[in-house]
Amino acid sequence: MPEIQTRAPSLTLDANTPAPPVKYVYDFSEGNKDLKELLGGKGANLAEMTRLGLPVPPGFTITTEACRAYLRTGAEPPELRDEVSAHLASLEATMGKRLGTGADPLLVSVRSGAKFSMPGMMDTVLNIGLSDESVDALARQSGNERFAWDSYRRLIQMFGKTVLGVDGDLFEDRIEELKRAVGAATDVELTAGHLRELVADFKRIVREQTGRDFPQEPREQMDLAIQAVFDSWNGDRARLYRRQERIPNDLGTAVNICAMVFGNLGPDSGTGVAFTRDPAGGHQGVYGDYLCNAQGEDVVAGIRNTVPLAELEALDKTSYDQLMSIMETLENHYRDLCDIEFTIERGKLWMLQTRVGKRTAAAAFRIATQLADQGLISEAEALQRVTGAQLAQLMFPRFDNGADATGAATHLATGLAASPGAAVGRAVFSSEAAVAWAGRGERVILVRRETNPDDLDGMLAAEGILTSRGGKTSHAAVVARGMGKTCVCGAEALEVDTKARRLSLTDRNGDAVVIGEGDLISIDGSSGKVYAGEVPVVPSEVVEYFEGGVDPLAPDTDDLVRAVHRIMTFADNVRRLRVRANADTAEDAARARRFGAEGIGLCRTEHMFLGERRELVEHLILAGTDEERAAALTALLPLQRADFTEIFEAMDGLPVTVRLLDPPLHEFLPDLTELSVRVALNDATPGTDPDTADTDHRLLAAVQRLHEQNPMLGLRGVRLGLVIPGLFSMQVRAIGEAAADRREAGGDPRAEIMIPLVGTVQELELVRDEAEQIIASIERERGVSLAITLGTMIELPRAALTAGQIAESADFFSFGTNDLTQTVWGFSRDDVEGSFFSAYLEKGVFGVSPFETIDVDGVGALVRAAVRAGRATRPDLKLGVCGEHGGDPYSVHFFHEAGLDYVSCSPFRIPVARLEAGRAAAD
Amino acid sequence: MPEIQTRAPSLTLDANTPAPPVKYVYDFSEGNKDLKELLGGKGANLAEMTRLGLPVPPGFTITTEACRAYLRTGAEPPELRDEVSAHLASLEATMGKRLGTGADPLLVSVRSGAKFSMPGMMDTVLNIGLSDESVDALARQSGNERFAWDSYRRLIQMFGKTVLGVDGDLFEDRIEELKRAVGAATDVELTAGHLRELVADFKRIVREQTGRDFPQEPREQMDLAIQAVFDSWNGDRARLYRRQERIPNDLGTAVNICAMVFGNLGPDSGTGVAFTRDPAGGHQGVYGDYLCNAQGEDVVAGIRNTVPLAELEALDKTSYDQLMSIMETLENHYRDLCDIEFTIERGKLWMLQTRVGKRTAAAAFRIATQLADQGLISEAEALQRVTGAQLAQLMFPRFDNGADATGAATHLATGLAASPGAAVGRAVFSSEAAVAWAGRGERVILVRRETNPDDLDGMLAAEGILTSRGGKTSHAAVVARGMGKTCVCGAEALEVDTKARRLSLTDRNGDAVVIGEGDLISIDGSSGKVYAGEVPVVPSEVVEYFEGGVDPLAPDTDDLVRAVHRIMTFADNVRRLRVRANADTAEDAARARRFGAEGIGLCRTEHMFLGERRELVEHLILAGTDEERAAALTALLPLQRADFTEIFEAMDGLPVTVRLLDPPLHEFLPDLTELSVRVALNDATPGTDPDTADTDHRLLAAVQRLHEQNPMLGLRGVRLGLVIPGLFSMQVRAIGEAAADRREAGGDPRAEIMIPLVGTVQELELVRDEAEQIIASIERERGVSLAITLGTMIELPRAALTAGQIAESADFFSFGTNDLTQTVWGFSRDDVEGSFFSAYLEKGVFGVSPFETIDVDGVGALVRAAVRAGRATRPDLKLGVCGEHGGDPYSVHFFHEAGLDYVSCSPFRIPVARLEAGRAAAD
Repeated sequence: MPEIQTRAPSLTLDANTPAPPVKYVYDFSEGNKDLKELLGGKGANLAEMTRLGLPVPPGFTITTEACRAYLRTGAEPPELRDEVSAHLASLEATMGKRLGTGADPLLVSVRSGAKFSMPGMMDTVLNIGLSDESVDALARQSGNERFAWDSYRRLIQMFGKTVLGVDGDLFEDRIEELKRAVGAATDVELTAGHLRELVADFKRIVREQTGRDFPQEPREQMDLAIQAVFDSWNGDRARLYRRQERIPNDLGTAVNICAMVFGNLGPDSGTGVAFTRDPAGGHQGVYGDYLCNAQGEDVVAGIRNTVPLAELEALDKTSYDQLMSIMETLENHYRDLCDIEFTIERGKLWMLQTRVGKRTAAAAFRIATQLADQGLISEAEALQRVTGAQLAQLMFPRFDNGADATGAATHLATGLAASPGAAVGRAVFSSEAAVAWAGRGERVILVRRETNPDDLDGMLAAEGILTSRGGKTSHAAVVARGMGKTCVCGAEALEVDTKARRLSLTDRNGDAVVIGEGDLISIDGSSGKVYAGEVPVVPSEVVEYFEGGVDPLAPDTDDLVRAVHRIMTFADNVRRLRVRANADTAEDAARARRFGAEGIGLCRTEHMFLGERRELVEHLILAGTDEERAAALTALLPLQRADFTEIFEAMDGLPVTVRLLDPPLHEFLPDLTELSVRVALNDATPGTDPDTADTDHRLLAAVQRLHEQNPMLGLRGVRLGLVIPGLFSMQVRAIGEAAADRREAGGDPRAEIMIPLVGTVQELELVRDEAEQIIASIERERGVSLAITLGTMIELPRAALTAGQIAESADFFSFGTNDLTQTVWGFSRDDVEGSFFSAYLEKGVFGVSPFETIDVDGVGALVRAAVRAGRATRPDLKLGVCGEHGGDPYSVHFFHEAGLDYVSCSPFRIPVARLEAGRAAAD
Repeated sequence: MPEIQTRAPSLTLDANTPAPPVKYVYDFSEGNKDLKELLGGKGANLAEMTRLGLPVPPGFTITTEACRAYLRTGAEPPELRDEVSAHLASLEATMGKRLGTGADPLLVSVRSGAKFSMPGMMDTVLNIGLSDESVDALARQSGNERFAWDSYRRLIQMFGKTVLGVDGDLFEDRIEELKRAVGAATDVELTAGHLRELVADFKRIVREQTGRDFPQEPREQMDLAIQAVFDSWNGDRARLYRRQERIPNDLGTAVNICAMVFGNLGPDSGTGVAFTRDPAGGHQGVYGDYLCNAQGEDVVAGIRNTVPLAELEALDKTSYDQLMSIMETLENHYRDLCDIEFTIERGKLWMLQTRVGKRTAAAAFRIATQLADQGLISEAEALQRVTGAQLAQLMFPRFDNGADATGAATHLATGLAASPGAAVGRAVFSSEAAVAWAGRGERVILVRRETNPDDLDGMLAAEGILTSRGGKTSHAAVVARGMGKTCVCGAEALEVDTKARRLSLTDRNGDAVVIGEGDLISIDGSSGKVYAGEVPVVPSEVVEYFEGGVDPLAPDTDDLVRAVHRIMTFADNVRRLRVRANADTAEDAARARRFGAEGIGLCRTEHMFLGERRELVEHLILAGTDEERAAALTALLPLQRADFTEIFEAMDGLPVTVRLLDPPLHEFLPDLTELSVRVALNDATPGTDPDTADTDHRLLAAVQRLHEQNPMLGLRGVRLGLVIPGLFSMQVRAIGEAAADRREAGGDPRAEIMIPLVGTVQELELVRDEAEQIIASIERERGVSLAITLGTMIELPRAALTAGQIAESADFFSFGTNDLTQTVWGFSRDDVEGSFFSAYLEKGVFGVSPFETIDVDGVGALVRAAVRAGRATRPDLKLGVCGEHGGDPYSVHFFHEAGLDYVSCSPFRIPVARLEAGRAAAD
């Protein structure tokens, strides 16, 4: 299940936007957290902390508007330079220092910060202001020569790489060389002298690579860094990211200029990150890491181990107490879990960043209810703090947490969590093997370097898919998500040898581990972990709760279940959208009802034509005369009626939308190619039983006659009903008689008959006329009123475009957004997910597969138009959706906004749809 | 080619509509010819003739508005009865008679008449006013007892059938019985006494069938007839007709009440029909038939032979001269060919109807130019008097007119003219035989009782199709039109015996004629005629003119060619739409240019991948490495370049839109089923050459990998370009280099590169970026400016829905209305024309196949939306259409109205498109 996409709207500035003349620079003390569009996320939060009186190093933010002007014209707007000068002068006055000048030079950081956090943009250049001259002043002022030269070295390296575009490896290689030469194991062992030498080398590298000297003028350094941030908005990776996330290209980024503070000035200095609550479990109490005598980069580099935040209390109680107080302030102010970055410079605490923190699914539910309990947020806000995607995560079965240690299974490697769930099976290394093992009743995990369309059969046969290469948009990932299969991809530690049918790796102890075909492995699609052996799978407690197996109010119930229950209850109370299930059997219907379904939005009848009834269906298709056809239909009638009776009983009192037969008839017959080969081989083989041969020949003739180049675009849906006499009539009669039976038995059947694949109102009129006559005759015969409504799928562009006409003959519309996506885009899900979707996701043509989340601009535009036109014709028209988007979080919001009455989805997705329908209504 | 559909707009009343209170009845003297919506066609023209002072029997018209009120409320509006009474009183005063009363009773006819002529509606009830009492008065007054009782008999029969709904056969059977009983060969031999007896029987039939007596009260007769006309608007056949012709259901019909005049009162009476010019050839001079002492019905019944109108001069010179003068008046007044119905009652001429007359294609062109020459109409009006469908008819080759008589061929039968053209070939009676004979190089005509999807291969192999059953919407007719094959269907005189492989019939002389398999036959799809033997085919002189082989201004040139030339010249002068050709070769391009093409709107490149190049394409597809793929592309480059160079030369100075590769790759490989069978059989056969087997296995693996369930919805178009590295680059390079070559040779190449199957602007941006770089590099290398533009097909609903975004990256749009029709409706042309289109046309779901004429409500809505959104983004966006609708008359009008810049169509359709573009502009 995808994250809900934050699709950014096109640029609309806040009401707070200043009137002309434009103001391009804001001091931290001038902004606030609501100015994200103008100041970027980082700048707005720095301003907010400043406003709250928290210890933020002084600084200022250059607005996204300045960036846009720069990108539009290719030059900084003329006013910008003056504004920057004024703000810099003010900063210098505040600090009592001058940028890169004098005995105590001011150094600043230059950091990008857009409205949305964007990997691929330039991040940070620290220590702007250092030069051959000021480095000495810094050394003197700090009393730490090594620190000064290390800072200068870092500046040239960062500036060279991100501002001047020098290949970063040239600097890294030089460091490694030097370390080897002097026998230093880590950077820390390099002395001030070594670093001075490095600076000289780095300056040479810059000169050689760029044809110019590293700029010594502090203001020039700053201006170049600002321009580099602006330019990074249009870098390749940033553009690709925006294309994938559908962030508008015209937003631009802000630039934050901030006085430097140093956590690496000695044992009374340090740096850390913290959360105001546990972001993993959602439990109360702060949570964080601290690294003494270090800068932020060092934490990331992982050279030394951090200590838990609590240890800071012993090291520097004043700073610790101040930090605790600040964190409480922030959480109360933001009314949410915050994460922060801070630095302590010689005992003085500085706040470098804050933002609302990321958290796990379980934490999201627990924290939202905690905050509501504390009265910090309302229940409606609590509902907004969780997502359907998070709820879905809580509903997957997961591996037993303790299993790593049981010895029954060993953690082998960690790849990318590509498609959630937990899967256990025997390792197989080819599609053929997967099919073969699965055919013998074994659960299998398909292991490949990467997958391609040839692997589709194997993927279908497998419990899960594991690859050693490829990202979250690789073929394996895309197809697995489409199939709802667990998938871990890009587990690069694994060496997959498909010819030898094994995977191998070197474990932590340096020992070789080999997994061969048939060995049991376990993969966790939610964490990316891969295990040798069988990890016990524990069912989701949240699912047990939805199934009715856990009392959410019992004292010993996990607080997670209590949190889910509380939020679901609120969601159900506020939502306007009803939630129905796609269910074809009484069993599914009953389960859906336990999950909260308020009816069936899609009961497919084709599955009722399979199994033991296939023979009757073959008779129907192969019928040579009207009588043969009628006989086949007559035999099918009681079977269909019994199906409907059971379903109406399971959904008593709730609506059940039954779709008349939709798929092309050849789906009920053997495959053309396979049958052709069989017939050809039989013909070539002397002694084949002539009866069998004759049957096969007749069957082949029928299959050839019914063969279509593009069955999705062929004789199916309402077209079948209009071409095959009696087919739809039989189904309508079965529904009507089942409803009459139920009514006579004291039940409350609420049947709705849905006609598939209508393109024009004339088709619907023809079917409707016939259906109404049949229903009326049953009502007369049985002396009951059935109140059966008749409606249509809107699943072809033409149906949506002529919805105003179609509504004249329809009691309801149900949007079939699967088919609508296929026809609007002109691609069939079966054919393209495996062939070019991964390329499209990688190139950023899609942000997410339009089969997962509704394509608002294309498919959505048709849905909106059809809603408008349909309701204009018939204000009481009932509107729903029964495509798979009905259970997709983002799509549910869209359907709410579009004004639908209900969504319908697979039973398992019903809780997600209920939650998101609530969130949409409370929004 | 379909007739241009007259798609009636929804009801909009004329400005002449009277203000309330509503006036439901108009005297003939109150209306005029422009009130067709209110008075119907018949009523408006009767009023017009009355206004001109022509001798029209007095009468009045009940408006369509009265009908609508009746249908809405289920009852006549209260005012209607009073108005009818007033008008009837006035009519009685004028005539000096009373309806059905007195010594000289007034009789009236009641006739329906809607805005559009509609078979399926009640037509006429004559002699209203006759009763047991008035029949005697009529006998006395006319001095002709037989006439009086025959009139009464006719009234009860017509009234019984059309007003009271009695089965008409009951009356006919009674007449036949009586004739047998009295030994009469024809009705004329029945005496007054026999007719009196019939009247008694008919009254009994009415009583038995309806439970009521035939109404004796004249006014009741009239009122019931009026209601019957109203009700007939909603009869089944009328509704079906409207569904097929897309005439709105809310128009209603008018009712005309007219004093009866009788052409059967003796030798000084008679009736006739006439045209003001020859409607067959279009030559000057009146044209008509006259039948002495008869009523209109008798002419239709064909009991006696009519005489040419000219003979009336000898019979009744006064009436003849008056008629000639009236016809001149009418033609000058209507400024067009008129047809009329008239009756002479005892030497007095009465005009019963007139309307603008139907005519053949050749007559339309000749008459339009004649009228323009006479100064009766302007050139712009002359242009409106002809249609593209008529021009297309003139462009088909036709059989030599004299051939019937040559003895080389014999006229066998006449069926329905289902798909135009002239075809000669050997008769075959099964699809297999058609394929087999055609495989031997023989031209064949496929003869079937009716066709079904199994016959598709045979239809493809045949020159023409002949069936003995089925109408113009039968499977054979629909599929043949789709294929552009000549077809005659429903030739019911022919007995087709497919088992015996022969057709037989009885000729005029009563002799049996048998045509066996392999015998030559000829069919004329424009006239429906079927011949035994080979009829010589003569090419169209109009085509020779377009080809430049006939000088339209030479004195001995046929005046048809002169007429076509004159009208085409005017059309070319006024039209705004440019007309381009779909052409893939230099030869087609040159031909298209002769036909008047102003560029190429669609140059497909897939045909350049066939023939001897197929091997290279296989290398491309089967390439295992990047190097193999690159090598295949490198080998294709010079071949593609040479193709483009030739085409640019043929179209020098005119735009050439080249579409990059569109079809799915497996189209270049063998069929999956055939190959699978071959491989299976080879594997099962010992001793197969292992090299061949290996190649086949590799090929099969590739075909399986590329196999798609729905190739139309798969990996094709821009998707191919984004997935196969180097493919589009090679094509862009070939186009660019060819243009550079031409420029260096002093030519003026105007290349436009078109990207197929774009669904989202991101796809276009990716291809565009690459293409622009390649073109720029060629321009640099060669030192020329190429001015190549880049645009996209709009052929997916999503492209149309997001056209505003796509226009940001496109210099032009070309609507691919074939694919757009397929995706908007969700059916593939290949699959459905043969399977359910005939049923849909018969049931009236379609009026015409949406592949022939653009579906304005669905596909057209998207075209309009895309035009609007595209031009909003980029006002100078060039817009065209390259689907087959570009050559369809009605569709051309739509594209003109939608604001496109050009249409593109197959070379042969260019003159039609030019003509219709002119008509659209002059409209």
